[in-house]
Amino acid sequence: MKVIVDLCVVPMGVGVSVSPHVAACQEVIEASGLEYRMHAYGTNVEGPWDEVMAVVKRCHERVHQMGAPRITSTLKLGTRTDREQGMDDKVASVEALLGSRSSP
Amino acid sequence: MKVIVDLCVVPMGVGVSVSPHVAACQEVIEASGLEYRMHAYGTNVEGPWDEVMAVVKRCHERVHQMGAPRITSTLKLGTRTDREQGMDDKVASVEALLGSRSSP
Amino acid sequence: MKVIVDLCVVPMGVGVSVSPHVAACQEVIEASGLEYRMHAYGTNVEGPWDEVMAVVKRCHERVHQMGAPRITSTLKLGTRTDREQGMDDKVASVEALLGSRSSP
Amino acid sequence: MKVIVDLCVVPMGVGVSVSPHVAACQEVIEASGLEYRMHAYGTNVEGPWDEVMAVVKRCHERVHQMGAPRITSTLKLGTRTDREQGMDDKVASVEALLGSRSSP
Repeated sequence: MKVIVDLCVVPMGVGVSVSPHVAACQEVIEASGLEYRMHAYGTNVEGPWDEVMAVVKRCHERVHQMGAPRITSTLKLGTRTDREQGMDDKVASVEALLGSRSSP
Repeated sequence: MKVIVDLCVVPMGVGVSVSPHVAACQEVIEASGLEYRMHAYGTNVEGPWDEVMAVVKRCHERVHQMGAPRITSTLKLGTRTDREQGMDDKVASVEALLGSRSSP
Repeated sequence: MKVIVDLCVVPMGVGVSVSPHVAACQEVIEASGLEYRMHAYGTNVEGPWDEVMAVVKRCHERVHQMGAPRITSTLKLGTRTDREQGMDDKVASVEALLGSRSSP
Repeated sequence: MKVIVDLCVVPMGVGVSVSPHVAACQEVIEASGLEYRMHAYGTNVEGPWDEVMAVVKRCHERVHQMGAPRITSTLKLGTRTDREQGMDDKVASVEALLGSRSSP
């Protein structure tokens, strides 16, 4: 079962700046070899369910190791059995609709 | 690593009523033996990380088996290393604050 | 347009304990007169869209006033035009299915 | 109060393909004049709280008008009082950390 997730890890008890923790998660995701895209409020990751979920766990472990006593994350999880669809396909299908409407 | 999650599974392509799918997920969670509390927009589940995440995966598998071609779920994930805290502790600590303010 | 939301407000930069901030949000919600149910990872609130969203805004304002320099919240928003359905109806329809299966 | 949100609108009861509804929401957001970035599992929007929330409401209204009898959306909401920070700043601060580590 393939999954596309959107992961946003929020360390608590480390002050107001969390970019070092977010950067550490990016390194964890990069090291996994999975496809991913960071945005301003999370990161999309796609791949086999167990591999993606192992990455989510490693992100929590890494952020705790960096000293965060508490973490709250949000995760959206998309699976489908009717057809293969990657992250870029999702964006492309919306953009195709938008493009066809705005063309002269 | 213990986790408290809030899980909301949304089957797509099955029509407007999803209570059979939600009920099936409740059965999956119940069968796991983990502590849980259903509310009107999801279910809180607590336990060891791997056990909780295995339940989330089985919910997706079960809902696909019921015929849903597509699922989008939302999951909040809370972990902490500073102390043990269960679902009921979280609610109790807020209610204690509210109660002390409203007492005469 | 009526809405059922699930709101989870996370203050950042205030240390690891956030129950005072969560309790303050409960007071904001209570003062609104809207129906609500707190659980271990958020609070369900139902009512007219604009009233519910005004409450969400006041929660952010109150938590900033308490000294939190940064807040990240998660909100699920459910609307429907086919029929009226309250928070308790949602839970009841799932429990009815579960109850009918487990009866002898 | 300025806010950065991440919005993901999920129409229910319209079948498995929701890209027309997502495209309609993109048009609603575009028409608002607010800054936004679409990704594979939602759209980041930034601006004054009331303007951003008005866009979220119009997205629900538009998707219901398109025939969806039910919608469930997820929204992350970030506010801060300590300093101005836009969507691109958030991404840039993480990338700066990653870049400095990977440089020779």
